[in-house]
Amino acid sequence: MRKLGVQEIEDIALGAALLGAGGGGDPYVGKLVALGAVKECGEVTLLSPDEVPDDALVVPVAMMGAPTVLAEKGIGGKEYQTLFKMVSQFFGKEIYAFMPIEAGGVNSMLPIAASARLGLPLVDADGMGRAFPELQMVTFTMGGMSASPMALTDEKGNSVIFETITNKWTEELARAVTMSCGGAVSVSLYPMTGAQLKEYAVRDIVTRSQRLGEAIRTVKNSTEQSPEEQFLEAAEGYRLFKGKIADVLRETRDGFNFGKVLLEGIGECRGKNACVEFQNENLAAYVEGEIVATTPDLICLVDTETFVPVTTDALKYGKRVLAVGLKCFEKWRSKEGIELVGPRYFGCDTDYIPLEERCKGGIYHV
Amino acid sequence: MRKLGVQEIEDIALGAALLGAGGGGDPYVGKLVALGAVKECGEVTLLSPDEVPDDALVVPVAMMGAPTVLAEKGIGGKEYQTLFKMVSQFFGKEIYAFMPIEAGGVNSMLPIAASARLGLPLVDADGMGRAFPELQMVTFTMGGMSASPMALTDEKGNSVIFETITNKWTEELARAVTMSCGGAVSVSLYPMTGAQLKEYAVRDIVTRSQRLGEAIRTVKNSTEQSPEEQFLEAAEGYRLFKGKIADVLRETRDGFNFGKVLLEGIGECRGKNACVEFQNENLAAYVEGEIVATTPDLICLVDTETFVPVTTDALKYGKRVLAVGLKCFEKWRSKEGIELVGPRYFGCDTDYIPLEERCKGGIYHV
Repeated sequence: MRKLGVQEIEDIALGAALLGAGGGGDPYVGKLVALGAVKECGEVTLLSPDEVPDDALVVPVAMMGAPTVLAEKGIGGKEYQTLFKMVSQFFGKEIYAFMPIEAGGVNSMLPIAASARLGLPLVDADGMGRAFPELQMVTFTMGGMSASPMALTDEKGNSVIFETITNKWTEELARAVTMSCGGAVSVSLYPMTGAQLKEYAVRDIVTRSQRLGEAIRTVKNSTEQSPEEQFLEAAEGYRLFKGKIADVLRETRDGFNFGKVLLEGIGECRGKNACVEFQNENLAAYVEGEIVATTPDLICLVDTETFVPVTTDALKYGKRVLAVGLKCFEKWRSKEGIELVGPRYFGCDTDYIPLEERCKGGIYHV
Repeated sequence: MRKLGVQEIEDIALGAALLGAGGGGDPYVGKLVALGAVKECGEVTLLSPDEVPDDALVVPVAMMGAPTVLAEKGIGGKEYQTLFKMVSQFFGKEIYAFMPIEAGGVNSMLPIAASARLGLPLVDADGMGRAFPELQMVTFTMGGMSASPMALTDEKGNSVIFETITNKWTEELARAVTMSCGGAVSVSLYPMTGAQLKEYAVRDIVTRSQRLGEAIRTVKNSTEQSPEEQFLEAAEGYRLFKGKIADVLRETRDGFNFGKVLLEGIGECRGKNACVEFQNENLAAYVEGEIVATTPDLICLVDTETFVPVTTDALKYGKRVLAVGLKCFEKWRSKEGIELVGPRYFGCDTDYIPLEERCKGGIYHV
């Protein structure tokens, strides 16, 4: 058990944005929401999963929709109270703690804001260990858990509860409502017991985000290694490519940001050009047409000087980025995991090969 | 209080299909659902609104979606139990009685099936006194009542509860989910107290449907008047046009059936051609380009021989139909009523003029 204050939130936002793998929203927007809530209502208590009673009701909260919309639409102050009321009323039992559903600039922050505003603890765990674009893409699905009852509310005051036969149907119906509500809404889903949390969640994700954020923040202070080497070591990252953004093709449709970014090589990385495809999150990275990393491993673009993560909605012509690969949570590499979030699900016609195998040979790694 | 058995249901289906004004679904499909339930579970008790206690919870049930889909998709047996459970759980109070939301071949029948299966009474009232395509188009909206909490369930077992800030938002969100669920779902909405029922509902609609159906069924047995005169007198209808269907233009989109039907004149009616525009229900009738009736008055097409109503999804080239106008429920003619369901709402650029004024001159009426 420990407290999350202003510095912790700054670091978590930065580190979670890296784990967002291009998605999960703008950490600046997310940070403002969490800092506002903590300054107004006090620091948040972070619990490790083992500190949560087995029969306690734990509820992930998140924003659903296209990150491009998030940044423009804003987030009201009443959504968490509404979600708390809806879920507690449904179960006839009060929520014990909130948790994030994914790592990401926004979705790591909203649960902190929700916890602060309702005076509830936050659990140091999530359902992805990164960000993914669709809501059935969580470790809880592999554990046979249901996303529903799922509660959804928008900033105008509309609210909806879904009970569905599969998590894919939850995604389908909630996505339709999200689009009708203007493209971004607040949701709670996968309500679970403390016991389920301990069995299926990705542990320590808040702490990991914070450490990554701290590493990014302090990366220039050492002199023994180059800043880039320091960053890659702290992130346990694989150097995929370094380049200047030559073009961004992007489309917001069906409630997602789809697109790809083209890079022209700079520095000592192999290859003259690279390309990263995304659906909210980065899905596959190609160097000179050859795949170097795919989902579920994380493909992250960061600024070449500051190592601050660049989300897919912040990609801009001319920006210099380092493309980094991070190993995904181990369970994503199982047969069930690959079916749920592997390259073929996203229409990328290749088998999943672990990042470290694709990047064998040493030129990628520190 | 009286009982509804097989003959009553046959007549109600027929008469309600007439009041459906082209929409409300196929009475044959609706009838099968109601008859099946009544044969299995027993007759249904029909209550007049005055027999319902003021504090009782009364809930309209209906099918939402495009009638063309209804006929193909079928209706399961469990939807009413699901709706009953969802609404009762929401209010912490059991539903006292069901009622229809609109008149129509299907939506007059489903509440009968629901009442039979759950052993609850049915109230002799609805929210339209006809059928309309969108769910905010009820007298309850004029009474300031909320459509939500609205419960929705599909035949697969998915279910959703909406709580919205306006009835237009309920329509928007529920329509999006309806489309995602395949175009037709079962819903309950405008949950109300007995007191609200008495104040805002359109009374005696089940009985009126039954009488109309009985009149259609028995129309040929007299010899004093022509069958057509008999039918028009029983229906208090205005003869708008009589013709052969020359063309049907139709499109199922956004969860509705849109289109128009072109008629070539036969018999003694004035004009050589006519046209009726519809969005699920018939919206406006033109004879040689001149408007002769518009929503909210009812425009009904019936078979020229049997006077059986022809719904918009059953329009076929070559069929001979009589176009009949019926006066709408008085409150629809108020300023609020015309705003909600008048011609301009549906994109028909004309003021509302009551049917009986448009049809002055005697050639239209018996």
